[in-house]
Amino acid sequence: MNIEVCYTPQAYHLFHKDEAIVVVIDIFRATSAIVTAFYNGVSKMVPVATVEEAREYQKNGYMAAAERDAEVIPGFELGNSPFGYMNNKVKGKTIAISTTNGTQAIEAARKSSKVVIGSFLNLDVLCEYLAAQKKDVILLCAGWKNKFNLEDTLFAGAVSDKLIRTAGYDTTCDSCIASMHLYNLGKNDMFEFLSHSSHRRRLEKLDLERDIKYSLTPNQCPVIPVMEGKYLVKM
Amino acid sequence: MNIEVCYTPQAYHLFHKDEAIVVVIDIFRATSAIVTAFYNGVSKMVPVATVEEAREYQKNGYMAAAERDAEVIPGFELGNSPFGYMNNKVKGKTIAISTTNGTQAIEAARKSSKVVIGSFLNLDVLCEYLAAQKKDVILLCAGWKNKFNLEDTLFAGAVSDKLIRTAGYDTTCDSCIASMHLYNLGKNDMFEFLSHSSHRRRLEKLDLERDIKYSLTPNQCPVIPVMEGKYLVKM
Repeated sequence: MNIEVCYTPQAYHLFHKDEAIVVVIDIFRATSAIVTAFYNGVSKMVPVATVEEAREYQKNGYMAAAERDAEVIPGFELGNSPFGYMNNKVKGKTIAISTTNGTQAIEAARKSSKVVIGSFLNLDVLCEYLAAQKKDVILLCAGWKNKFNLEDTLFAGAVSDKLIRTAGYDTTCDSCIASMHLYNLGKNDMFEFLSHSSHRRRLEKLDLERDIKYSLTPNQCPVIPVMEGKYLVKM
Repeated sequence: MNIEVCYTPQAYHLFHKDEAIVVVIDIFRATSAIVTAFYNGVSKMVPVATVEEAREYQKNGYMAAAERDAEVIPGFELGNSPFGYMNNKVKGKTIAISTTNGTQAIEAARKSSKVVIGSFLNLDVLCEYLAAQKKDVILLCAGWKNKFNLEDTLFAGAVSDKLIRTAGYDTTCDSCIASMHLYNLGKNDMFEFLSHSSHRRRLEKLDLERDIKYSLTPNQCPVIPVMEGKYLVKM
């Protein structure tokens, strides 16, 4: 079983394999928010690429979340702050969601046979699930507007490291090797390791340090969201 | 002055800035070969994207080099082994060259105002040149078929590290930060650090260890190839 890491949605077509499981990763903050949402009882989510599509769902009575450049779009009740989903209002609901990077990554992976959502919040259950499938794995980082980012890479490194050390996986992929090196450099204090990263700076300006610290704390939400048709559901 | 690292030619359009200096990097082996060629007295080189174009130049009496998947294309006297250019036959010649990744990266950067060629072989003179220009720098890694690779990243890290530590440069680019981390991890024994990398494995199969060791040894060829119109010339 082989693991590969794809750093941006734009490059996903170079990695696609019909039978591989794709893990979509957008640590700050879409996949952290999605995992939190399912842990807090959301029933389904509909990832949509554009804000307009999210607005359509809203018009049709759904809850909807829309974020661009780390801020909630006016007129939407939710963005991609995980804390927005720790709320009884979301329980049992179907929520449409559109974000700067995360939903674009889901879009890129959509033709894959199996797409699951990864974040530090569900790290261990995700790794256990992947190990049990014995299939090739593609870790798809959402990045930032199709550029590489550090936080998604750290998570890709964490999953790769675990599967290679403990579950008989191997890699011939340089981005996977690099991700593991970076994870092992940063794992003892990821918050500090990311202090110069572009997105941490971006979120700090917006006073989102609480979101950052939460999103970097492993295993707070042991659930695995998985794509079924156009919906994300809890596995 | 800002430095950014672009990991693949495909992503270059996301980084392009009219006034920036672009350094094209293909350590194994196109840019190592090009730097070696100029150091050994080649007069001009014409990087071309396709083997057919290289063949056209050959028909018109030029020397020509063509490589795909690390092997010389039949019918060409040169590929991208630097050792092919340590030869009196190349002195004063104009050579057309087409390679799997390196010439594609040059092609991507062509619209930039200044494109130079980087490799460990010209590391120090290149950094001195860049430091003196006081312009933004984009380090463009050729990668492998538009995927990230480790050896180009190490070199991007080496240049970034030097310019940031000694020449007043800064970065807000996560791929630049990651490259410096990886360079600092690997710099004491790059050959060993790359032992699991995809391209070192590829070249090992082809018995090209000599090329690898040579291409990782800094400052053997203190020349800077630069694009002028369709030609590479010695600065």
